[in-house]
Amino acid sequence: MAQLDKIEELVTRLKNKDKIALARLISIVENSPEIAKIIFKNIDHLLKSAYIIGITGSPGVGKSTLVGKIAKKLMDQGKSVGIISVDPSSPYSGGAFLGDRIRMTNLTMNPKLYMRSLASRGVTGGLSRATFDICLLMEAFGKDIILIETVGAGQSEVDIIKLAYTNIVIVAPGMGDSIQIQKAGILEIADIFVVNKCDLGGDDIIAQFNMMLDDAITYSGLTGWRPSAIQTNGLTGEGIDELIEEMWNHKEHVELSGILDEKRKTMIKNKIIDLIKYEVEKYILSGLVNENELKEMVSNIFNEEFSIFEGAESIIEKFFSKLKK
Amino acid sequence: MAQLDKIEELVTRLKNKDKIALARLISIVENSPEIAKIIFKNIDHLLKSAYIIGITGSPGVGKSTLVGKIAKKLMDQGKSVGIISVDPSSPYSGGAFLGDRIRMTNLTMNPKLYMRSLASRGVTGGLSRATFDICLLMEAFGKDIILIETVGAGQSEVDIIKLAYTNIVIVAPGMGDSIQIQKAGILEIADIFVVNKCDLGGDDIIAQFNMMLDDAITYSGLTGWRPSAIQTNGLTGEGIDELIEEMWNHKEHVELSGILDEKRKTMIKNKIIDLIKYEVEKYILSGLVNENELKEMVSNIFNEEFSIFEGAESIIEKFFSKLKK
Repeated sequence: MAQLDKIEELVTRLKNKDKIALARLISIVENSPEIAKIIFKNIDHLLKSAYIIGITGSPGVGKSTLVGKIAKKLMDQGKSVGIISVDPSSPYSGGAFLGDRIRMTNLTMNPKLYMRSLASRGVTGGLSRATFDICLLMEAFGKDIILIETVGAGQSEVDIIKLAYTNIVIVAPGMGDSIQIQKAGILEIADIFVVNKCDLGGDDIIAQFNMMLDDAITYSGLTGWRPSAIQTNGLTGEGIDELIEEMWNHKEHVELSGILDEKRKTMIKNKIIDLIKYEVEKYILSGLVNENELKEMVSNIFNEEFSIFEGAESIIEKFFSKLKK
Repeated sequence: MAQLDKIEELVTRLKNKDKIALARLISIVENSPEIAKIIFKNIDHLLKSAYIIGITGSPGVGKSTLVGKIAKKLMDQGKSVGIISVDPSSPYSGGAFLGDRIRMTNLTMNPKLYMRSLASRGVTGGLSRATFDICLLMEAFGKDIILIETVGAGQSEVDIIKLAYTNIVIVAPGMGDSIQIQKAGILEIADIFVVNKCDLGGDDIIAQFNMMLDDAITYSGLTGWRPSAIQTNGLTGEGIDELIEEMWNHKEHVELSGILDEKRKTMIKNKIIDLIKYEVEKYILSGLVNENELKEMVSNIFNEEFSIFEGAESIIEKFFSKLKK
């Protein structure tokens, strides 16, 4: 199979730090979980050598600019950096606008950086599946640090956040009141809390964050880590050094405390379940019922011949009747 | 079964417009897709009599205040209104902060309104599953209009947006540049585009939106609807009348053009697939592998005895060997 030869060649090139091979493999993995399985036969799966950092913030907080600055500093420290930018994209066209790429054009010319935008849609088998797989490829390429950038608001984003070993949450002054800070679940997500655009203020947000932390004794008791609040200015670079230092502190903390091992075990478990779900769902929606049958069922339900629940039940019954006792 | 008697009683009370029964049934449905199936045996599933409106906007655009104003106007027009507020909540504690509830306290005293916040986590079987089921309950209660409020950024939010027959996208001036407007996929989602906090400006956003629309001939060609851009002020109520009028215009458009029927068919199909996926997942995690087996497999993978993909493969093989030929 010519296809397979090509993939083996791409994997070899990937391990030799060929950026084009990395780009191609990511595209393949995004679109086909089937071929992904073949690719990953020759790649380590445990995300041991790359350290994954999640960066979360609403649109408008200056996330992309800050991510660019963080990446730059890490590269100055000799690290090879990969960025996965998860875009809340068009639900219909499936495309992301890739604004981050536009903003970081200068940065992407750096040979130590590889950046990839990932659209919420147009990814087969789910966003967290694709993000995980891209992390594996980036690690195999030799990335030391993988930055995953998300808006962090949805359920799938939460699954992505759980992949990260250190999570940075970014807010900006004037983007909503105290209720929104609490709604965002910052206390639970953030290992490091950043107030960006600090030229616009933010002392009140920091004070409130620290007050919330003081109340949340159980939280710090659980992990042994008290998240710090750092003020940055993505444009001038103010506060970035402090942020990077705190990142390394947190990395050391999760490594020494055993939290990292637990995170990686959870990640393994979730990935196993994802892979199984994908196969069983594929079996039901192609092997067990086909597109036409499903379409006919939808028509019948629409015409009130039976209910949605009865329709689904009949397929589920068919599924279980196919299983041996 | 006493439990079942109680549920039948609750469903009867629901149909007699008992708010407490509605609240209890929503809680049951949120937490148990199993009992949901029993509840929905006696409830119509096709969301024909209630009209569903999606309201999407980033934190800080004044979404909750505007939703409150819209609900108030609709009730003044004699409509019974239900609000489902989907909160990007804490991924760990599972709780939402329910800021919207705090902001809308006066409103919730109105007997024509029922409002419910839904946390991203803590919902069994997915957020869009729960939102759909709550819509069914609200319809059975006799709601004419259901407003679903989301931040609209994540994959699950996109699934929720697809439930709505009319989608309103809200932005506010000064919350990010033109790139972010395009990233949000506004053109594809918005049936009505709202620039809130119009006292802070917004003419430039409206101009840009209209320019984007002019470029997107294919879009308006597909649906026959050109989204309008409306400026509102949630605090003073400016522009709300115009917004409501445009909502009714769009409702008429989707009804007459056949788009509503297509949307409802898609909704039926997605619900069938959701119900099947839920059963499959349950089967995998209890029928196919048990917690201990999975834990052992994770340990072995962590200790590099075999890979994640090999582990998953062995369970998938076990699954297919269970299927009758």
